[in-house]
Amino acid sequence: MSERANQLISDILRRVHEAIVENNVTYEEYQAAKQWFIDVGAAGEWPLFGDVFVEHVVEEQAFSNRSGSQGTILGPFHLPDAPLLDAPFELPHRPDESGDRTRVTGRVTDVDGRPLANANLDIWQADAEGRYSGFMPGPPDGNLRGQVRTDTDGRYEYVTVIPGPYTIPLDGPTGRMTAAAGWSPWRPAHIHLIVSAEGFEPLVTQLFIDSSDYLDTDVAGAVKPELIVHPEPVGDGEFAVSYDFALAPARTPAIA
Amino acid sequence: MSERANQLISDILRRVHEAIVENNVTYEEYQAAKQWFIDVGAAGEWPLFGDVFVEHVVEEQAFSNRSGSQGTILGPFHLPDAPLLDAPFELPHRPDESGDRTRVTGRVTDVDGRPLANANLDIWQADAEGRYSGFMPGPPDGNLRGQVRTDTDGRYEYVTVIPGPYTIPLDGPTGRMTAAAGWSPWRPAHIHLIVSAEGFEPLVTQLFIDSSDYLDTDVAGAVKPELIVHPEPVGDGEFAVSYDFALAPARTPAIA
Repeated sequence: MSERANQLISDILRRVHEAIVENNVTYEEYQAAKQWFIDVGAAGEWPLFGDVFVEHVVEEQAFSNRSGSQGTILGPFHLPDAPLLDAPFELPHRPDESGDRTRVTGRVTDVDGRPLANANLDIWQADAEGRYSGFMPGPPDGNLRGQVRTDTDGRYEYVTVIPGPYTIPLDGPTGRMTAAAGWSPWRPAHIHLIVSAEGFEPLVTQLFIDSSDYLDTDVAGAVKPELIVHPEPVGDGEFAVSYDFALAPARTPAIA
Repeated sequence: MSERANQLISDILRRVHEAIVENNVTYEEYQAAKQWFIDVGAAGEWPLFGDVFVEHVVEEQAFSNRSGSQGTILGPFHLPDAPLLDAPFELPHRPDESGDRTRVTGRVTDVDGRPLANANLDIWQADAEGRYSGFMPGPPDGNLRGQVRTDTDGRYEYVTVIPGPYTIPLDGPTGRMTAAAGWSPWRPAHIHLIVSAEGFEPLVTQLFIDSSDYLDTDVAGAVKPELIVHPEPVGDGEFAVSYDFALAPARTPAIA
């Protein structure tokens, strides 16, 4: 047995029990909730539900004291093994990919500003219609997913399109719950990244597009002001974004 | 949108978020919890989990002010349409059914003691080894499940065997959680009943056998002192239990 498991599970059950008493939850509501839990599992939406409604608190709690750049939630749409890109560092996309073409550049450093060469940026994002390849109909497998490495000065760049905002799936139990509660199902436009380098804590983060709707009402509660970027017009309908990442040193495992 | 749904879901999420912060829940614990939610769904254990760890609070909350006999949780092992029994009112059982043969008798009345004729008692229980027909290997379909009606004096009787205590399934995610937390997985020996009569609130309840282990540590938290019965030896290795049920009047629906 684990004292930690006992503590955590007892504490969460106690809070749920208190919610039942304080809100006078009825049998009908209990049965509806039980059916909803069954439905979420059947729809394969536990990762979605957790990452949208719970992960942001775990992330804030886990990393509130970490030095370096801000992180935010991983979300359910990351896929491993995206291709490592060479120059000109264009994320894989369709020939007629819609959306504003944008070059993202910056540096990866340690928290003292020393450049980190050969740091890895694993990038994934929705297309301009808010659809993730591998999860939603439309974009082909691998679309707008790729990895790039920093050069000896810690500089990186990649070329992509500005993603669109999107809703969580509306027809599944997570979307139905969101509608029942009267909440906005939208996430503002954002680009996901995991920035990593040997000897440093991996940074799971997102860059939010400042012109997007829903920055103040992100259903996933994942927006942080430090992560909002402004795509600057650079002519020919193209844009540029600059963002530097500072990585915290790898944590030494706590002594048990 | 429903203000009630917003209130309930917001309140429960807020409490879960507070638990994460106050207990310093780690990302590893969050990921393990998410996988456990997926596992509970895949194992079909949401009814089990809910009825064992949550329903008793809903029941107490819903019926704390009800007049008449005490109820307790329904649990996940009720099946509809058990056969209506005629004299001698023996619950269906195997020819060699093990366990102490017991006659259960009593009356069904309103809260003023007036007998209720033709009240229905829907009865289900585990066998002496703690196994429910229709859910666990061993007993044949319909074993120890039946319904009886009261006579014109509100009297009922049925013949059964004393059930055994049992554990929740140990090999599924609910059992693994219980083991991880170091909790007892046992339920004390009990007989389930739903007592109903036209114009009265159905009473979902259980009779607990006073000689059983685990009365103080019921994993489902469903034991109430008023529901503990003493099987009295009546000779030839047989026993008798007497229990009267008083039903509360049907609630008129609240005005919306």
